[in-house]
Amino acid sequence: MTIENLSVNKSFGGWHKQYSHYSNTLNCNMRFAIYLPPQASNGQKVPVVYWLSGLTCSDENFMQKAGAQRIAAELGVAIVAPDTSPRGDDVADDDGYDLGKGAGFYVNANQAPWSKHYQMYDYIVQELPDLIESTFPVSDKRAIAGHSMGGHGALTIAMRNPQRYMSVSAFSPISNPVNCPWGQKAFTAYLGKDKELWRQHDASELMRKATQFVPAKVDQGESDDFLSEQLKPEMLEAAAKVSGYPLELNLHEGYDHSYYFISSFIEQHLQFHASYLNQ
Amino acid sequence: MTIENLSVNKSFGGWHKQYSHYSNTLNCNMRFAIYLPPQASNGQKVPVVYWLSGLTCSDENFMQKAGAQRIAAELGVAIVAPDTSPRGDDVADDDGYDLGKGAGFYVNANQAPWSKHYQMYDYIVQELPDLIESTFPVSDKRAIAGHSMGGHGALTIAMRNPQRYMSVSAFSPISNPVNCPWGQKAFTAYLGKDKELWRQHDASELMRKATQFVPAKVDQGESDDFLSEQLKPEMLEAAAKVSGYPLELNLHEGYDHSYYFISSFIEQHLQFHASYLNQ
Repeated sequence: MTIENLSVNKSFGGWHKQYSHYSNTLNCNMRFAIYLPPQASNGQKVPVVYWLSGLTCSDENFMQKAGAQRIAAELGVAIVAPDTSPRGDDVADDDGYDLGKGAGFYVNANQAPWSKHYQMYDYIVQELPDLIESTFPVSDKRAIAGHSMGGHGALTIAMRNPQRYMSVSAFSPISNPVNCPWGQKAFTAYLGKDKELWRQHDASELMRKATQFVPAKVDQGESDDFLSEQLKPEMLEAAAKVSGYPLELNLHEGYDHSYYFISSFIEQHLQFHASYLNQ
Repeated sequence: MTIENLSVNKSFGGWHKQYSHYSNTLNCNMRFAIYLPPQASNGQKVPVVYWLSGLTCSDENFMQKAGAQRIAAELGVAIVAPDTSPRGDDVADDDGYDLGKGAGFYVNANQAPWSKHYQMYDYIVQELPDLIESTFPVSDKRAIAGHSMGGHGALTIAMRNPQRYMSVSAFSPISNPVNCPWGQKAFTAYLGKDKELWRQHDASELMRKATQFVPAKVDQGESDDFLSEQLKPEMLEAAAKVSGYPLELNLHEGYDHSYYFISSFIEQHLQFHASYLNQ
């Protein structure tokens, strides 16, 4: 497995780096970014927070806009930001911003024309961590976090793999995709008509039935334009009550769906993850 | 004078807002961004740091990437980020990224075809602060800062107007534009062949002859690809020694020309400005 370094920037005493590698899971070249805190240059194996971005994003949005490196450097955690879908000229796409490239929804597609490349679930759960842990000075302690579509991805991946993640957090997640337009469109395309399969990738469905708990923190802006139609955090909260899930859900007056919201609260999220990762 | 609000985002308890207005100085519509810290919503008049961006940038780069809002909110200072040139279909442009739109160089052009719109010096020094101070809950205490071309702009504007600015800072400024390719190309186009006029917009020339001092802080990455050919901070340091100018110049191993560098040290810059603005 070879990876190619694309860029290097010093940041808060650590290093932001972009890499390209061929993904056998996705059958295409993929780019990801990693932030290695100063501790990683001192022979220490640091834990990793995986960040899953939202619709239309690449590995760059979070690294450039969230202001996370300052806190990651303090706490001694690495951050890995993958892309949000397979990429390349021969990868199927759709005219909508909410399907196809930039909108992989962190599931394994089983429908044509998507199934050849859109296997983002397996990429995030297995191939990427394997690559990261065999390449960089990191431990196998993992947390996962994300925004919007990536919040959906983080919550569902953590709850389906409680043995692999010590904590999970989300900003403005698509909390109940089986009941919102974004989720219904993507799941119909990628997963077909079997609604039982859809529910296996729905954070509220998984949280309602959970018996193994990955501690979860969710923050949501009350002025988010997508709140009532697409995000529905109240469904997640109701599900947590049924199963007794350790969900910390906070609503924030005036905040919207943008990185101005994420940057305002990313410090709390990384502190939350570090409290588990650095135990 | 009317201005139109284009966007609003809550950020660290304050507000990031973008506005459009017609500039009589530039003869075109201009966009700027302002960050108003929480203190400005409580009836307090806050001081303002003006941020001048570098080549190719708009009002958005700094606001999205620098991570400055967290510190501005703590310190109670507003930040105003103007665009880097006049804009619009009837504004003269050049194929190069370093001349024309996105590259106004913060001077008043006196050469065709530039002189009709490229009056960025007057816009930054007078028209924009007049607009800001008559529109928002801010005081007339001002600091000015910038990056690269904007570092040149901040240093030269502060030194030419010591009564208007309490402090000045720059990341990776074009320190001696009369002696580097970027500066020579822009000054030839905008100011013509009169090198005496060029020197009036050269930070090192102004610093060498300065008799009134605006405290200055400059940070420069040692792995900056533009360091030796375009930026030349050693010329600024030498000039400061001649005049006894209060210049704090810091070099940083491993850091480059990007916002990863700016975000790593923006807290120090805002603390520097607040120490003068909040006196």
